[in-house]
Amino acid sequence: MKLRSGRLLTAPLPPIRQAVAHVVNLPGVSNLTIGDPAISVPQSVRLAGADAFLSGPHSYTPNLGLIELRRLVVKDLETRLGLTYGDDDICITNGGNQAITLAIAATTQPADGILMPSPGYPNFTMAAHFAGNTIETYDCSEDTQWLPTLHTLERAYRDDVSLLILNTPSNPTGAVMNPHQLAEIADWARFRNLWILSDECYWPYSDTGRFSIAQFAPERTYILDSFSKRFGFTGWRIGTLAAPRGEANKLLKGQEATVACISYPAQAAAMAAISDRTGHYEREYERFSAQRNQLVETLNSLGKTPAVGNGGIYAWANFSQVVDTTRNDWHLDLMKTANIAVVPGSAFGENAQQWGRLSAAINENDFALALERVRSI
Amino acid sequence: MKLRSGRLLTAPLPPIRQAVAHVVNLPGVSNLTIGDPAISVPQSVRLAGADAFLSGPHSYTPNLGLIELRRLVVKDLETRLGLTYGDDDICITNGGNQAITLAIAATTQPADGILMPSPGYPNFTMAAHFAGNTIETYDCSEDTQWLPTLHTLERAYRDDVSLLILNTPSNPTGAVMNPHQLAEIADWARFRNLWILSDECYWPYSDTGRFSIAQFAPERTYILDSFSKRFGFTGWRIGTLAAPRGEANKLLKGQEATVACISYPAQAAAMAAISDRTGHYEREYERFSAQRNQLVETLNSLGKTPAVGNGGIYAWANFSQVVDTTRNDWHLDLMKTANIAVVPGSAFGENAQQWGRLSAAINENDFALALERVRSI
Repeated sequence: MKLRSGRLLTAPLPPIRQAVAHVVNLPGVSNLTIGDPAISVPQSVRLAGADAFLSGPHSYTPNLGLIELRRLVVKDLETRLGLTYGDDDICITNGGNQAITLAIAATTQPADGILMPSPGYPNFTMAAHFAGNTIETYDCSEDTQWLPTLHTLERAYRDDVSLLILNTPSNPTGAVMNPHQLAEIADWARFRNLWILSDECYWPYSDTGRFSIAQFAPERTYILDSFSKRFGFTGWRIGTLAAPRGEANKLLKGQEATVACISYPAQAAAMAAISDRTGHYEREYERFSAQRNQLVETLNSLGKTPAVGNGGIYAWANFSQVVDTTRNDWHLDLMKTANIAVVPGSAFGENAQQWGRLSAAINENDFALALERVRSI
Repeated sequence: MKLRSGRLLTAPLPPIRQAVAHVVNLPGVSNLTIGDPAISVPQSVRLAGADAFLSGPHSYTPNLGLIELRRLVVKDLETRLGLTYGDDDICITNGGNQAITLAIAATTQPADGILMPSPGYPNFTMAAHFAGNTIETYDCSEDTQWLPTLHTLERAYRDDVSLLILNTPSNPTGAVMNPHQLAEIADWARFRNLWILSDECYWPYSDTGRFSIAQFAPERTYILDSFSKRFGFTGWRIGTLAAPRGEANKLLKGQEATVACISYPAQAAAMAAISDRTGHYEREYERFSAQRNQLVETLNSLGKTPAVGNGGIYAWANFSQVVDTTRNDWHLDLMKTANIAVVPGSAFGENAQQWGRLSAAINENDFALALERVRSI
């Protein structure tokens, strides 16, 4: 007799990793598939982590994370966005990914629906699947400049939906929502009585102002911030989730039920990173934003690969005039003809087959070579 | 209009932390509530973690964890238990807790039932609640020497159950299952076609042989091992989950969907800990096992506080002859009269009201004082 299938049997494999499994580290290919910004980590940040191992305590931290780190996050949200949080409204998570899982558990019952963007970050889908929720995608395609509208949201809405996931700047399209759009969607979420998870992990790379829907709907918005994208240490696994006032007690329960707390030395390193005042990180953000703009302009200047990308670390381009994008593995054809590895749009949703994601957050020399190759597509 | 309640609203607060919130760090009280073994961490292990921060990579590790660490875990399972695993059957987790969440997702659909011990580790309940599963407890009370039997398991079984959680040595009772009992339950799980999650995190502290149900039902058993309990660094958050051959692909998906991977420097420290050949850890296990035995003997010698505990770091004692255990906060009364803080049995299940859990894994001086106080209960 066969054993019962767990929910993970039918879960999709990570689509991005699957799509790029063949291309990573191929010699002679410009690898633009990476979601890891190539930010250098200051020695002071490394030392803070090392010191925590050498002379720090080795017992549990509070479920929500070190109080000193949460205080720094509160101050950061106040300074950046003018938002007021208490120390106990913040939860330190195992990277941005774990913040998604936690926000879903805080705001949904297992059978509830979750609204999420398409094209969009595939881990939203995976996390919802893991949690047993149903998925309703709202269209963020070229038709609406890659952004949600009241019309596309309302069309995707079902009565069982309890959570709306927003992502601005968007992964993969780089689209950024402006304050007017955020205010409009905040009103709609209020009308439909939804919680909001706002994934803002690419905010440092946004050119067009840095806003959060929490400024318009603080009572229902969970803000996700990823220290991986912000401080360049994806492998140390630190993210934060800021809960609406008075809701973080749920997050405490969620952490105890699933991870207990996050690795202490990584939290110590995160404290040093968020306290950095040398301007190091700002220079890195400017560098990658400039590279992204250059990549978008170059793609557009070719006349056959229309591209967008206002924020985040990615350019998003249509390759249908240069390869046969009706083929499922057209990105392998592109790799053969142009020596460039991109993530095909199908990894992000069914409505993005002709498009591809190109990371601009790579080091200068690799970027110069990649740009040259883009020019001769 | 009220927002919909997420599943975490109705989740219980962590029962142990709740029960002991008032007693932790009270001056003049022997705190025996701690689940953190007071093991000292060798400098070589601290240095391995520090070095990872100072000179290691800072990007993602594989979803399942560093291959070098997984190889060491495979070797360890082979040496300790004679079991054969491939590197890809092992998953490195954010402590033992995250291994519970992951095993539940790998083996259940959201509405499936999970069989778990009562009294038992409350985080089994919390994790099942988080995952949307229903909970069926099987009796592990004094009537059956604190162990499951075919009769108690069969009585708790329902048709919707897909996973059986075992915990040996048990938290809180210290009961240890022998090979005959494990073989019998393996057969029963096969008959009922259940997956098994075997939480063996206290195995180093077991006097009566170290066995796993995976030796009798390898095709359906997930083994949980906690490096927190084994190497004394709860706050660094490392655990492992060994999957039945060929099932770990599910764990890979689960990690990507929820945490991506575990903090790299903590994995580096774990490699040094599991490679330690100085005998340091074995001495610590012997010390705490001896303290546990001494605590059990002393409680029994009083004639009014019958106690058990063969494995693990806890003594488990009946306090109904020395305080009014019908009161919900009898442990506070005990604290006042005897200056000893214990975790009351109600934190572990409804069938353990008169009992309390006492940790023996505290340092020598604190233990000597605690023992003196136990003698004058």
